[in-house]
Parts: sequence; structure tokens; C-alpha cells
Amino acid sequence: MSGGPVVRCEVRPGAYYDSVVLMQLQRGLTALPGVLDAGVVMGTAANREILAASGLLTPEAERAEPGDLLIAVRAESEGTAGEALAGVDSLLRQRRGSSGEGYRPRGLDGAIRQLPEARWVLVSVPGRYAAGVASDALDRGLNVFLYSDNVSLDDEVALKRKAEALGLLVLGPDCGTAIVGGTGFAFANRVRRGPVGLVGASGTGLQLVTARIHELGSGVSHAIGTGGRDLSEAVGGATARQALDLLARDPETQVLVLLSKPPAPAVGARLLAAAARTGKPVVVSYLGFTPPLRRLGNLRFAASLAEAAELAVALAAEGGASPGEGGGAASPPPAGENLLLRGLFSGGTLAYEVQLGLSAFLAPLWSNLPSGVVKRLPDVHRSVGHTLLDLGEDEFTVGRLHPMIDPDLRLRRLRQEGADPQVGLIVLDLVLGDGAHADPAGALAPAIEQVRQAARTEGRDLAVSVLVVGTEEDPQGLEEQLATLERAGASTCRTTEALVAEVFRRFAPRPEPPAVPVPLSALAAPAPAINVGVESFYDSLAERGIPAVHVEWRPPAGGDARLAGLLERLKRA
Amino acid sequence: MSGGPVVRCEVRPGAYYDSVVLMQLQRGLTALPGVLDAGVVMGTAANREILAASGLLTPEAERAEPGDLLIAVRAESEGTAGEALAGVDSLLRQRRGSSGEGYRPRGLDGAIRQLPEARWVLVSVPGRYAAGVASDALDRGLNVFLYSDNVSLDDEVALKRKAEALGLLVLGPDCGTAIVGGTGFAFANRVRRGPVGLVGASGTGLQLVTARIHELGSGVSHAIGTGGRDLSEAVGGATARQALDLLARDPETQVLVLLSKPPAPAVGARLLAAAARTGKPVVVSYLGFTPPLRRLGNLRFAASLAEAAELAVALAAEGGASPGEGGGAASPPPAGENLLLRGLFSGGTLAYEVQLGLSAFLAPLWSNLPSGVVKRLPDVHRSVGHTLLDLGEDEFTVGRLHPMIDPDLRLRRLRQEGADPQVGLIVLDLVLGDGAHADPAGALAPAIEQVRQAARTEGRDLAVSVLVVGTEEDPQGLEEQLATLERAGASTCRTTEALVAEVFRRFAPRPEPPAVPVPLSALAAPAPAINVGVESFYDSLAERGIPAVHVEWRPPAGGDARLAGLLERLKRA
Repeated sequence: MSGGPVVRCEVRPGAYYDSVVLMQLQRGLTALPGVLDAGVVMGTAANREILAASGLLTPEAERAEPGDLLIAVRAESEGTAGEALAGVDSLLRQRRGSSGEGYRPRGLDGAIRQLPEARWVLVSVPGRYAAGVASDALDRGLNVFLYSDNVSLDDEVALKRKAEALGLLVLGPDCGTAIVGGTGFAFANRVRRGPVGLVGASGTGLQLVTARIHELGSGVSHAIGTGGRDLSEAVGGATARQALDLLARDPETQVLVLLSKPPAPAVGARLLAAAARTGKPVVVSYLGFTPPLRRLGNLRFAASLAEAAELAVALAAEGGASPGEGGGAASPPPAGENLLLRGLFSGGTLAYEVQLGLSAFLAPLWSNLPSGVVKRLPDVHRSVGHTLLDLGEDEFTVGRLHPMIDPDLRLRRLRQEGADPQVGLIVLDLVLGDGAHADPAGALAPAIEQVRQAARTEGRDLAVSVLVVGTEEDPQGLEEQLATLERAGASTCRTTEALVAEVFRRFAPRPEPPAVPVPLSALAAPAPAINVGVESFYDSLAERGIPAVHVEWRPPAGGDARLAGLLERLKRA
Repeated sequence: MSGGPVVRCEVRPGAYYDSVVLMQLQRGLTALPGVLDAGVVMGTAANREILAASGLLTPEAERAEPGDLLIAVRAESEGTAGEALAGVDSLLRQRRGSSGEGYRPRGLDGAIRQLPEARWVLVSVPGRYAAGVASDALDRGLNVFLYSDNVSLDDEVALKRKAEALGLLVLGPDCGTAIVGGTGFAFANRVRRGPVGLVGASGTGLQLVTARIHELGSGVSHAIGTGGRDLSEAVGGATARQALDLLARDPETQVLVLLSKPPAPAVGARLLAAAARTGKPVVVSYLGFTPPLRRLGNLRFAASLAEAAELAVALAAEGGASPGEGGGAASPPPAGENLLLRGLFSGGTLAYEVQLGLSAFLAPLWSNLPSGVVKRLPDVHRSVGHTLLDLGEDEFTVGRLHPMIDPDLRLRRLRQEGADPQVGLIVLDLVLGDGAHADPAGALAPAIEQVRQAARTEGRDLAVSVLVVGTEEDPQGLEEQLATLERAGASTCRTTEALVAEVFRRFAPRPEPPAVPVPLSALAAPAPAINVGVESFYDSLAERGIPAVHVEWRPPAGGDARLAGLLERLKRA
């Protein structure tokens, strides 16, 4: 026997332990005299890699399965290592004995008997068990805060459909934080109560924003985490839309904040419609995609978490609930809402910026300048659905002057789009200045009048909006150009933001309020809760005096998947 | 012969005509009595499609080649159509005769003799001839405004390398606008002169921003278009970097604006370094990617064109050239600048927002949360180059508590990264609040001290920066946590923006000033210019009294490519 450090590992197949217990066992082993390092992990590939990086992987451990518990120690000697491993059961017993707070229920029903006023269940058991526990909670009329990760997308969809039908909330899976009526669930900063209500598919994002709102002297009504996948196509923003509806009705919430990575396009559209429908100012921060808009009706866009906090506090200070100027977004769309949009631009960057703005809520959007979620038009000569074209692109300008000089191509296309009975709005740009056409409005006006008149004859309303770029010093005369367009029946605007707002007003999807609204009582303060899983989440509720019960949860068949399957079949038989 | 409208088309093979001439011919034909519509285009596939959409495509025209000129008319009768086509040559002669302004040079040398003070040549001949004309202009010591599109990328790279070596500018190809010392080239709005200098890979974007600056009561020193491909990897932002350097030295310019679609990552890094080096406030608007930062030293980010204009005007009103607080970006990077960055985060959204900010200037960047230009780390257990990790991702948390509760995994990884002699900065987050570790700073501090000490022993400087999220109400105590980290030698910050700024200060590429700076005389007012191509660009210079000469340019061999090739070979022989 050599005198150097030795590594020993014990593999316990198919055993379930709470991860707090494992962390404490690892700390207990490391603290033993003569033990240099210890690792206590489930035998997943990632965990075995981590053991290897710390020099704690032995040949037995290399062959472990994800369901196996690995207990590895590096010690000064063979003897110390052996003693440490031999002491594992006693360390585990110590831990078990420590929670001597009297009777703890083993399941939800027992917990409900102990805390009948509970409205929430916090679920943080391992992913493969979490959907079952959450579903049981919904069956019992309780809202679910679902901290667990590694829950399947199918399970998430099923849980959220069920919750929607019951008028209950499922926050998560993989939801790290929530503040419900001042009570933080799982990870939450202690912040002043106040006028800002938050909805976020992002845990630490919500934490940073709530902490910053507090630091700026304002406060939080509620912060509702949704889990990171809520805004995927499959889940459809189910929780986010329930939460927006709920905060819209909540009298404490004056300003809303919506945080997320950029949602799936169709979900983004429904979400902004739901946000517009709240009628309260909503600060939207889509990390990684900031539309080139400051405001869209009652919506404001922030480029960062910090900016979202600052905007929300500023809006709350202004008095919140009044949506202010430009609040047209919440108004119902005019007749013809299902018609299509066509954009015919001469300026590439103008087309691109408008398209970026539209892509926040209009999907699918087709273009010859595809980017992000905007799709490439298969044939630039034939528009499909909502289409935006840059007619100044190289493909259109071989042997031909730019459309800012020669309007011929655009006029032909304008007549073509105008004749399409599905088209409800045509947007154009018009760029004045030296080098451009001497009277571009005069060139466009007859065609605008003609397509609008032809549409009216067919009994439909065709609107034309023009973004005009120019100064009053430009040779064409800004005022005259605007007047010519307006006489022809077009509406005019001066910024891409205004043009996008006009499209939003007409084309934003009709918001669909939840079939079964979540009652405001879900947000009542305090929020008595049942905790199933990580015990420290219970501890921090108890510490703050929030009525709470911890369930002494164990997986079916002690975590043995084969045995659990057998039991399940027996139950059904 | 039936009485209905007839369509007739004439195909003229291999003929070159100025596109203004073609537009005017088409208008002339359409104006003839009995002519219902006319199309005069080069025979490209796109143009034939457009003729077809207007009912102007005949079987002869369908078989045309891109180099053929197509003249199509739809007329009331066969006779009228025939007469119209028979009159084409006389219409073309009318047009030729109209420009009776005396002698016009046929080439650059003649033009230079007529206007020896010219500093600029405006090139708008068809794409295949444009690089040749531009190159001739550079040979004669003249800056080039290259309006032409359909110029190859190889030609662009060659022209810009040549221009850089000569201390000259090539704006374009596909450059729609510039304002040089108050003189607009090609398409430009008439705006007040003033303190804002612009650089933009975007034509109508520059027009909208300059017009808006004017509307807000401020003005423009110069607006320098670069062409849309300037910020590609191949071109490397050659013109944009020359332009930033030039505007940095220009005494009229107090605030800069940089507009573009998101550049290639490596180009973006060099560009921001060049912008930082100007020492003047620079408003950056990358359409479609707004970093989650308001400021980065002297740089400010705007989410839209309109916001870029408003920020620039506000900064100019504040006095411009002083970069204000946080101006560290322009300071030289400390020793160790070529070392690597490693980020170990417990908060997914914090990691994501930091990563978005870093991706504006740090490339390549590796991560387990890839997005946009950030690459997916092939093996999450081994960092490569600049790496950012979210240790709270599902892959790390099977059977393990979240790193906000259990710091073990992060401590192991911190020691692993700290031992890598290439690592110069480690960034961490630390999230306080309920549910989190009772003393996370206390858990991290010994490892931070240890890795910094070990690095010092090896003679290198290893910095650690920590983003702390929390409030003074949090159970851990915000002030104590910050103090513990700082005692361990870490620097601390409270926003992702501040953390990103710290990384920028250390890792922004060293700016490379142009080897041959463009002399300020390139921007002198007015800007006498030689125009080669679209005649109306000359007209609008002449109208404003800018000294200008129009070259009566004809392509080699009258546009016949085969014959031109033969002549070229004869010249060389």
C-alpha cells in the first residue's frame, strides 16, 4: 500500500435522495479528517465528467448509470477513504434526524389538511416526477410554481392546457422565481411592494429587474415567472397570456413589464396583442431582439433589463395606468382586419427597419430582404401573404434607374398589389432630396387614387400609408409632397415607428382573453404554500412567517423506475 | 387584323444606353397618341418578368439576353404600334440633342483638365464598368463616390485596398448618399450644417437620420456612406474605419453616428475599437441588433434610426466632444490584453444578457447558450477561447442543486479556469435573496483569493469581476456581500452593462489607425466633383452651384462585351 492519496467510489444503484441531502452528505464527507475532496452526484455523463475533472472518477464510477448514486472520496490513505465511505449511512441518518419539526405530511392531501388556505404548490422534485406532482396539485384546485427542470415539453403543454381550463396558473417548469403578493417563491429578492407587475420567461432577469426597481425607490406588485419555454410555438405563451390578463385586472399593478428571449413569431404576435389589451403601460424587453420602436400604443420596448426597470419606474411615476398619447394599439382593429399587408419601398434601409418593427407582431412576413424571422419571398414578382419589398435591390435595378428616380416599376407593382382583393393596406416610402425624382408624390398620387377607387368599386377598403423622408429645404417641398399624398387619400408619417404603429393598429391579432380567467385571489397576499421538493424553499417561507407546509416527498418505489412501472401496472389492473 | 390592342417588341442586341435615356424613351413612347403602355428595359430575367406582368412580353422578347435592349409597346392598333417603334431612333436623337451645354469631356482626364480642383468622382455607370472607372479615379488621386450596384465583392476589396494605400476614400459600391462639406452626392436631403458627423452602410438610413437631425434643429458636418458590404468579413469595414478616423480629426464634427446592419463579428470588434478611439461621443445603431447597453465608454447604442438622430442631437447639445463619465473605453487596454475571458454564471438570463453585450465586440465567443454570432461550446466541460457558461442549465443540474444554492460545481470550475495560464479575466454573477445560498460571497471568496494568488505566483495578473444582484433587504446583506468579494480581490458591479464595459476596457481590440490617413481636405466645402454615369446627379450639383463636370461616358466598344474583350487583348499585345 503506497502512502499517497487514494480515490475510492461507491455506486448505489437506483437510489433516490433529495439533492439537499446529497449536498450535505458531500459537505459532511469533505469535512472528515484526512478526506481531501469528495463528490456525491447522480451518475449522469455530465456528472461523471465533473468528477473526472476533480480527479474523483474511479473505474467503477465510469461504468455508472444516470440513475445510480456515486459517492467518491479522495483521502490521505486507503484507511481514511474506507472509513469515510463506511460512515455514509450514518451521515445520511444524521441529516434525516435533523428536521425534527414534528409531523410532516407525505403527500398533497395531508398537506392540504394541514394548510387548507394554501393556494400554491411549489414543486421542485426531480424532473421525471415533477409533472405528476404538478398535475395532482391542479386537480386539487391549486396553482403551481414548478421549479423543476428536465420536464418534457409534452408534459408542459399538457399541464398548461389543463391549468387554462381550470383558471389556474402553472409557473414553469424551470421557473426560478416569482413574487406573489409580496411572497417570493424559490429564488427572489426582497423588494418593496409597489406599482410594477412583471411577467417573465426568465428567472434571474426578473430578479435583476425587481431588484433594480427597488433600488430606484419604486416597488413590485407581483412578479410572475413563466418558465423559459412558455413562449415557444408549442406552449404558445399560455402562462404569459394568463399572467398579462391577471395583472391587467389587478388593481395594485399600474405598469407592466414583460421579459423574455424573443418569442416564436406567432406567439410574439398574440403576446403583444394581449399586452396591448391590458390598457396599462407595458414595458417589453425581448433580450436579443429590440424592435426599432420606442412605443407601440401602450407598449414600450427596452433594450436591456436595466432599461426595462428604469422605464417601468418612470412610467409608474407618471401615473401608470393611463396609456398616454399614441395609445391606439388597444383599440379594436377596423373592419378588414384579416386582409393582407404589402410594402413597396424604394429605400432599402427604410424597408429593413420597418420590417424589423413588423416582425415583432406580424408573422409570417415575406420579403426580398429576409432577416431573423422574416422569410425569403420565393418569387419577388409575386407577393404572398404579408409581403415587404425593397424595389431598390440589385435584382430590380439592372439597366434601370433606382425607384427613387424612376417610379415606373413601383407604379406597376402598386397597381398589381392594389388589384389583389386580399390586400387591405399598402405601405410605401417616399424619399425627397437632391438626386431624387422632381415630384415623387405627384408621380405616385394618381396610382394611389386609382387603386383606392377601384377597391371601393369592389366594395373593399384599401388603405395606403406613406413614410416621407425629407426636409422643408428639399427641392420638392416637404409640405407640398405631404399634401399631394393626402389629397390622393394616403395617410402619411415621418418615422418608421409611426408606420409600424399604423400597421399594428390594423393587423395586430385580435387578443383572445383566457376562456377561464384566473381569479385575482391567486395573487392574494400573503401566499400560503405547500412545498414539495427542495426543503430550503420551505425554510425561507417559514423564516418570513408565510404559512407553509413541507411535504416529506419520496418518489414512487423509492426511485426505482422498474419497480415503479410494475406498481403502476398493478394499480391499473 | 383585329381591332383590339396589340403588343409589339423590338430587341436591339448588345446596345448600351444610359438608363436615364431609357427612362425618357419609355416616357416618350407612352406619351404618343394611341400608345397604351410601353416598356424599355435590358433583357434580364427580372425585367422580362416585369414586362410580362404588364402584358408587354412578346415571344421575341421572351428569348432576349440580359445584354439586349427590349422596347415593347402596347398600342390601339398594329399601325400605331409600328409607328411608335419606327420613331424610337428619332426619340433617342431628341434626347441626345437636349444636353446642349457645350463641350463635355469623354473621359476622366478631360474632366480633370476642365475642373482641376475636383477631389471627388461620382461613378454611376453600369456595375460591370464601374470598378474600372473607380480605379482610374483613384489612380488620378481622386476620392470615389461609387453609386453603381452589381459590382463584384472582389472588385470592392481591390478598390478599397488600393484606396487605403493612397489615403483616398471609396464610398460604395451601392452607395446611395453622402454629404461632403455640405454637398450632397446622389440622393441627399438638404440639411443644415452642424456638429453631427455620420458614417453609414445604409443609404436611406443616413437620409432619414440626417433629415431628422435637421428637423430637430441641429445639423450635419458630413455624412459618409460606405456601401452595404463594407462591414462584411471580406471588406473588413475599410471605408467605415477610414471615415471614423477622418471624422475624429475633423474639427467641425463633435458627435458621430455610425449606422449599419449588424457587422460581421470580427469587423464589429475593430469598428467599435475605431469608434472608441475617436474620443468623441459615437451613437451606434446596428439595425436588427441592439446590444443591451446604453453606453460603452464614449459609445451609445440606439435601437432605431430615429433614436440615433435624437441621441446625437442631445449629445451635441451637451457639448459633444467630451466623452463624459464612463469614458474608459478609449483608454489603452492594460497589460495582458491578449488573455482570455471566462464567464461562470449561475443565472441564465444574466449570462445571456452579458453575452449579448459582449457579442458586439468579442469574437469568437463560445457558450452553452449559443445565440446569434455566439458559438456553441463543443464540450461544456472544457472552455475554449473566450467562453461564457450558464452553470444553471439543465445539463449541469441533474440530481444536483442549482448553483445559486450549491456553489460546489462553480468553485471547482473557477479553480479549473483560474489555473489556465491564458485566462486574464473571470466574470461571475452572484444572486442574493431568499432561496439562495446563505453567504454566497463567503463561499466564493476563498477560491477567488486562491486563484488570484496562484496566478500572481506564476507572474500573471488574473482579474475577477462579479455582477451582484440583490437589495439591501436581502437576508445575506448586500453591503456585506460586496465587501467580502472586494476583500478577496474581486471587482464588483451591479448591472450587466457595467460588467460588459469592464470586459470591453480589457478586451476591445487595439484600434489600428489607417496606415495612410485620409487628409481632411477630402471633406473640404464645397466638394467640386466629376460625374460619370447618371446625368441627373450632375444636374443637381450644377443646380446648387457646386463646380462639377459631367463626363459623356460610353462603355468600351459601345457596350459589346465580345468586342470590348478583343480590344482589351489588342491593347495588351
